[in-house]
Amino acid sequence: MSAAPIYFDNNATTRVDPRVLEAMLPFFSEQFGNASSMHAFGAQVGGALKRAREQVQELLGAEFDHEIVFTGGGTESDNTAILSALETQTGRNEIITSAVEHPAVLALCDWLQKTRGVKVHRIGVDAKGRLDLDAYRKALGPKTAIASIMWANNETGTLFPVEQLAELAHEAGVLFHTDAVQAVGKIPLDLKNSEIDFLSLSAHKLHGPKGIGALYVRRGVRLRPLIRGGHQERGRRAGTENAPAIVGLGKAAELALQYMPEELGRVRELRDRLEQGIVARIPRCLVNGDISQRLPNTSNIAFEFIEGEAILLLMNQHGIAASSGSACTSGSLEPSHVLRAMNIPYTAAHGSTRFSLSRENTQEEVDRVLAVMPGIIARLRELSPFWQDDAPASAEFKPSYA
Amino acid sequence: MSAAPIYFDNNATTRVDPRVLEAMLPFFSEQFGNASSMHAFGAQVGGALKRAREQVQELLGAEFDHEIVFTGGGTESDNTAILSALETQTGRNEIITSAVEHPAVLALCDWLQKTRGVKVHRIGVDAKGRLDLDAYRKALGPKTAIASIMWANNETGTLFPVEQLAELAHEAGVLFHTDAVQAVGKIPLDLKNSEIDFLSLSAHKLHGPKGIGALYVRRGVRLRPLIRGGHQERGRRAGTENAPAIVGLGKAAELALQYMPEELGRVRELRDRLEQGIVARIPRCLVNGDISQRLPNTSNIAFEFIEGEAILLLMNQHGIAASSGSACTSGSLEPSHVLRAMNIPYTAAHGSTRFSLSRENTQEEVDRVLAVMPGIIARLRELSPFWQDDAPASAEFKPSYA
Repeated sequence: MSAAPIYFDNNATTRVDPRVLEAMLPFFSEQFGNASSMHAFGAQVGGALKRAREQVQELLGAEFDHEIVFTGGGTESDNTAILSALETQTGRNEIITSAVEHPAVLALCDWLQKTRGVKVHRIGVDAKGRLDLDAYRKALGPKTAIASIMWANNETGTLFPVEQLAELAHEAGVLFHTDAVQAVGKIPLDLKNSEIDFLSLSAHKLHGPKGIGALYVRRGVRLRPLIRGGHQERGRRAGTENAPAIVGLGKAAELALQYMPEELGRVRELRDRLEQGIVARIPRCLVNGDISQRLPNTSNIAFEFIEGEAILLLMNQHGIAASSGSACTSGSLEPSHVLRAMNIPYTAAHGSTRFSLSRENTQEEVDRVLAVMPGIIARLRELSPFWQDDAPASAEFKPSYA
Repeated sequence: MSAAPIYFDNNATTRVDPRVLEAMLPFFSEQFGNASSMHAFGAQVGGALKRAREQVQELLGAEFDHEIVFTGGGTESDNTAILSALETQTGRNEIITSAVEHPAVLALCDWLQKTRGVKVHRIGVDAKGRLDLDAYRKALGPKTAIASIMWANNETGTLFPVEQLAELAHEAGVLFHTDAVQAVGKIPLDLKNSEIDFLSLSAHKLHGPKGIGALYVRRGVRLRPLIRGGHQERGRRAGTENAPAIVGLGKAAELALQYMPEELGRVRELRDRLEQGIVARIPRCLVNGDISQRLPNTSNIAFEFIEGEAILLLMNQHGIAASSGSACTSGSLEPSHVLRAMNIPYTAAHGSTRFSLSRENTQEEVDRVLAVMPGIIARLRELSPFWQDDAPASAEFKPSYA
């Protein structure tokens, strides 16, 4: 193929914005000092870190810049918040989370359950991926160390009512954490008017660099560091400050705030054009997730009776990058734990494909994808032993666009 | 001042080599895919990560590339190795380390002792900073989970006989870890012919980027991850691979290997010229550490009766960057824990200054520093209430160059 490749996998990672890279460059080979050093090489870095902290604060709508702790990424932020809560909440040995969290939360919880005797409540979701609020409420109790529910699901884009969930947690005297790796930069946030105690974010999901993230820790909430050593980040995360990446995260946060109306407007329109176009052109496909409460950039579509991996392979031959499930579990033959939790029928879950857009995508790209998808799906269905052109939709599998 | 600034603080951090940055650049905004993704954007990153792993393997003289686990830096590597050993060595609840380790090891050990009932043996050093081998041998026992001794001290450059220490540990059935953050890239390493089980390194100490490091884990040695989530790094360190930084670390490792003769030759000559020049020009100064077993780039000099912070301030006014103690404890008024462990007299420890060079330094820079240091020290001593021009050297304070 000769046309430029199309990148619709922005929930896996994003291209670093050239303005972000430009902001980072001086900190590699010019202002390269250790921010903790006493000389001019160190001092010139300190101001840049402070500005970056304020840029992240502004994007989150946090009250204080010192509520932002820079980390090595979203996974480290998630691990830090949950382990810290278990340590600081003496006598509380239960965690509440959802069945559809990212592995950064679920794998940690599995391990805590297996090796530390922690009781983990994995709150279920309905067919649209919406949290079972009653079960969540009932699980909150005097033994709960922390409730950790994601802001937006990485596979379907479904948004969780985390502000409400945080209030419910606080009513029960429970700390609340949200993995907001997919939400930050895509929807407006206003942490100072919420009761959220901890929030995780990752720069590379918002056109910032990899290897850098942050943990928001509400003022007054105790934090036990995961990584111990020097006094960086006010003793909350040891290790030489990653100045270029921190500056890059700051710039990415500034740009994300500036592009927020675009993300909410033009990107949503592109996503809807793609999604509605596919559903109109291709029979027997279903949009997974809660269409009314969803990230503006994400569409997860199940193509019944075929394999997601095969779809991605053919799309790749057309120069189109998308994803089945999350990148963190790619290569696994299991259907996504998110779609299984939603009780999406096996034959549809296997054929689910995630399209995740960004402000860098264009309508021309959407139209190119729409032009090739019907052929790709038809070709694979011809090869499928399960596909029958006139098969009735299974009772539990109603297309959500009719 | 108008002359170009002089950077003699390379043990705090180094300038990213322009060739390292050049190798990194395509991975920010062109080959930016998630290495775990199934499409072309992801696939093109996988090969680069493999090459970087081999470059690090070559620098370490490791037998297998999969013995290299990429982490967020030296501190994370240290924490991972020690915590993993405690978890995998059931029934063993003691750690052996030295009194002069980096805070990345000591702060973790302090916390383990305080909160986990771990017994920590902090093996002392003599006046030259050499480990008390008898005490080390005696501390090894059936309760020891791990011995963790640095390869080279960050403040004095003193080298520890880690290959021998690893053999002694194995004779006692104990795992051995070394924080080699200061050694890697400065002296030849040959891990495959050693019994070292774990080794920590940090890219930014060898002209690589900040925010990336590695933990060497000998094949067959169990590792429990510190950060849990996705399956990256063969399940040993979760989180999206930091491809640009990993590629940068790989290139930095390749260059370090290439420059090893230079580091051992020309850099050592520059360091000796600086050190011997200072000792010849300035009375009452002492070279701290083991001069015969030392990193080629490091000189730690005590100027009696004055304050290190004041020395740095005046040096900074001349455009010269150096350090007192490590950057990780800068800002603290305590004299360095390393010099205290060596029983350096208080009045000398306070005036100790670390000069750490790199392959980027020149003889012209050394000579500029030599030209201004006598005036700086004389000026500060004039202000010192403790300074007497004709005071006899205290019994325990013999200049090591006579």
